[in-house]
Amino acid sequence: MTANRAYLDYNASAPLTDSARAAMVDALAVAANPSSVHAEGRAAKRMLEEARAGVAALVNGRAEHVVFTSGATEAATLLLTPDWTMGRAPLRFPHLYVSAADHPCILKGGRFAAANVTRIAVRADGLIDLDDLAVRLARHDRAAGLPLLAMHLVNNETGTIQPAAEIGRIAREAGAVTVFDAVQAAGRIPLDISEGYADYLVLSSHKIGGPKGAGAVVSAADLMMPSPLVVGGGQEKGHRAGTENLPAAVGFGVAAREALAGLAGIPQVTALRDRIEDLVRTQVPDAVIHGADAPRVGNTSFFSIPGMKAETAQIAFDLAGVAVSAGSACSSGRVGPSHVLQAMGHGDQASALRVSIGHGTTDAEIGLFADALAGLARRRKGNSEAA
Amino acid sequence: MTANRAYLDYNASAPLTDSARAAMVDALAVAANPSSVHAEGRAAKRMLEEARAGVAALVNGRAEHVVFTSGATEAATLLLTPDWTMGRAPLRFPHLYVSAADHPCILKGGRFAAANVTRIAVRADGLIDLDDLAVRLARHDRAAGLPLLAMHLVNNETGTIQPAAEIGRIAREAGAVTVFDAVQAAGRIPLDISEGYADYLVLSSHKIGGPKGAGAVVSAADLMMPSPLVVGGGQEKGHRAGTENLPAAVGFGVAAREALAGLAGIPQVTALRDRIEDLVRTQVPDAVIHGADAPRVGNTSFFSIPGMKAETAQIAFDLAGVAVSAGSACSSGRVGPSHVLQAMGHGDQASALRVSIGHGTTDAEIGLFADALAGLARRRKGNSEAA
Repeated sequence: MTANRAYLDYNASAPLTDSARAAMVDALAVAANPSSVHAEGRAAKRMLEEARAGVAALVNGRAEHVVFTSGATEAATLLLTPDWTMGRAPLRFPHLYVSAADHPCILKGGRFAAANVTRIAVRADGLIDLDDLAVRLARHDRAAGLPLLAMHLVNNETGTIQPAAEIGRIAREAGAVTVFDAVQAAGRIPLDISEGYADYLVLSSHKIGGPKGAGAVVSAADLMMPSPLVVGGGQEKGHRAGTENLPAAVGFGVAAREALAGLAGIPQVTALRDRIEDLVRTQVPDAVIHGADAPRVGNTSFFSIPGMKAETAQIAFDLAGVAVSAGSACSSGRVGPSHVLQAMGHGDQASALRVSIGHGTTDAEIGLFADALAGLARRRKGNSEAA
Repeated sequence: MTANRAYLDYNASAPLTDSARAAMVDALAVAANPSSVHAEGRAAKRMLEEARAGVAALVNGRAEHVVFTSGATEAATLLLTPDWTMGRAPLRFPHLYVSAADHPCILKGGRFAAANVTRIAVRADGLIDLDDLAVRLARHDRAAGLPLLAMHLVNNETGTIQPAAEIGRIAREAGAVTVFDAVQAAGRIPLDISEGYADYLVLSSHKIGGPKGAGAVVSAADLMMPSPLVVGGGQEKGHRAGTENLPAAVGFGVAAREALAGLAGIPQVTALRDRIEDLVRTQVPDAVIHGADAPRVGNTSFFSIPGMKAETAQIAFDLAGVAVSAGSACSSGRVGPSHVLQAMGHGDQASALRVSIGHGTTDAEIGLFADALAGLARRRKGNSEAA
C-alpha cells in the first residue's frame, strides 16, 4: 500500500505475500506445459505437485486428494452438482442444502436446479440454526438419493465461525455428504479434514496471501467425485481439464504453507481487529457490530452505523484513504443490501461496513482508519445537530 | 531455455514474453479485488479493462464482447452447451457438430450429451470435408432448434488452417451458429471476427506468449450467450463468476497486443520451420510430413518416421536436449495414438512428432535439433543394417 492509504479489505482479496510472489516469478520462467513428457514438462509437473502438497498440508489432507481449480467459485460449482461417480458407478444427489448466509458461489447452488436447493436458516448471531438443519435433513426423501449439504465454515461478511463438528454430526446422522466452503477459514482457524465433519473443502488462494486465479477442492477421500465441470484433456486425474495454471498453483502452495505457519500469529491480528472495534465503539457508540456474540475469526469486523448507508460510509472511508468494503466484492461493483444481514434477521440494518485485515496490516493503517472514522463521526454528529 | 536445451514445443505452451512478464509482476502488486468499489478496486478494474481491449484487438473484436475465462478449455466448455439465452429468452441448441480432428476441449462436446455430438470427417490432408459438413448440417432437424458448429481454425498437431470462410458460408446457409477454436491460430494468422464466419472465438493466453491460466470467449455480438458454466457472483457481466484473475488477464492482454504486432514476423518463423523440415527430409528421406499439402501455419511441423514410434523418438530428442512433442500435451503425460492422424486416415502412422516454434526460437536451438535428428537417423540406419 502507499503510505497514505490503508488497505483493510483482506476478505475481498489479500495482498500477495513476498514468498508467494517470488515463487510465482520463478514459475513464470517455466515455459513448459506440466502435462508434457519432456524434461521441461516433468520439471513443471514436480513444481505443481510440490504446490499440491502445500495446499494439502493447510488442511491436514493428502496431496492426492487435492484438485486444483481456477478459484473457489469454480471449486464450488464443481462440487455442487447432482451428478457424481462412486468409483465408476454413477451416483446422484437429488437435493442440495445450503445456508441462507452463504457466499453466492454456494448460495446459487452450482449445477443444481433452483427448485432442488433448500436454504437452512441462520440465527440472529449468524450461526446456522441447528434445529432447522436437523429438521430439513430429516424431511429429505432418501429414496431419491442422499442429501448434499454445502455451507461456509466462516462467513465472508461477519467472520462468524460455524459449529462444524455439530453440523457434521447432524449431517452424518442424516446420511448427508458435506461440502464446506473454507475460503475465509483458511489461515485464520486451524483446519483438519481428518476430523471428519467435511467430506470436501473449498479453498481459495487469493484470500490467504496467494495469487488470484487459483483454488482447490480437497477431499477426505477420492472414491466419490463430482462429474467434471471443465471438460477436455485428462488433467487433474480427469477431474478438471485444461492446462494446469502452474504459476498460480505454485503461489497458492507457498501461501498455503505460510498460512498454516501464520496461525501462530493470529492473536496479534485479533488484537488489531479489537483495536478497530474499540475505535468504532468509542466514535460511534450506537454502532451495531454484527456477529460479535458468536465465535468469530480474528481478522474481520462487520458493523452498521445507524442512519448511515454502508455505501455512503464506504465512500467516505475511501476518500479518506481507507479501503473497506460494504458487503462482498463478488458482484461487479454493485452494492446492495447484504443477504447475510437479511438472513440474520437484520433487515432494518440492511447494510454494513466490513473491515478485514491480515498479518500485513500495520499500526499506520489502523491510524488512518481511526482518523477517517473520527471524521465520519464528526460529520454525522454535525448533521444530526443541524437537523 | 538453458544453453544446452532447445524448447520446440510452443503449441503445448509458449514461453512468457518479457513484456507480459513485466506487466504481470506489476499486477501481482495489486491486492484489490477488481470488483471492489474503493480506489484500489477501481484501479484494478481499469487494468482488467485495458487487458480486455488488448485481447479484443487481436481478433478485431470489441472489448465488451470479451469474456475472460481460466483458459481455452473452460471457454470451450462454456460455449459448448445446449442451453443459451437470447437476451432474456431461453434458446436451445439440440445438437453439436465438431470436426474429428479437434482438440479434446472441442471434441468431447462440452456440456452436450455424447449422443448429441456429431463428428464431421476430415480429409487426408487434415482439412475439413466440406461435403460431409454440408450433408450433416442439411440433415439436422431444425424443428428441434438450430445446429451449433464448433471446430478448430488451426489444428494443434498438424498446424493446418481450416477454410474458415467456406465453413462459415455453409454454416450460415444451414442456420448454424459457429464457434471456432482459434487457440493455435492466434498470433500465427490474422484473425478478424468482423468477417462473419465466426459467431464466437476461443482464445488461449499461454499459446501466444501470455501466462497460463487465462483464456477468453470473444463474441461477434453479445445478445446470444451460453448459460454460465462457473456460477456465483456477477463478474464478467454474469457470464463467468469468480474473482477476476487480474495478473493473468493483464499478461494475456499484453501478449495479445504483441501477438498482433508479431504477425509481421511470421515469415521469419516460417523460414526456421522450413529449415527444420529440410533437415527432416535430408536425414530421414522416408519421413512423412503431415498436412504439408494443405495451408499450414508457419510455426508447426508434424512428421512420422516410418518404423519408429513417436514416443521413442520424443525420448531420444529429450535425452539429446530437445523438447518436442509426440501428440498434444493435454492428457496428463499419456502418449497414445494421435486421434488427429486417425481422423486423417493415417492409422498406419498412428504417431508423429510435433515440432512447434515461435518468435523466440534461435538458430542455436535449430542447431541442437539438427544434431539430435542426425544422431537419431544414424542409430536408425545402424539398427536397420544390423537387422
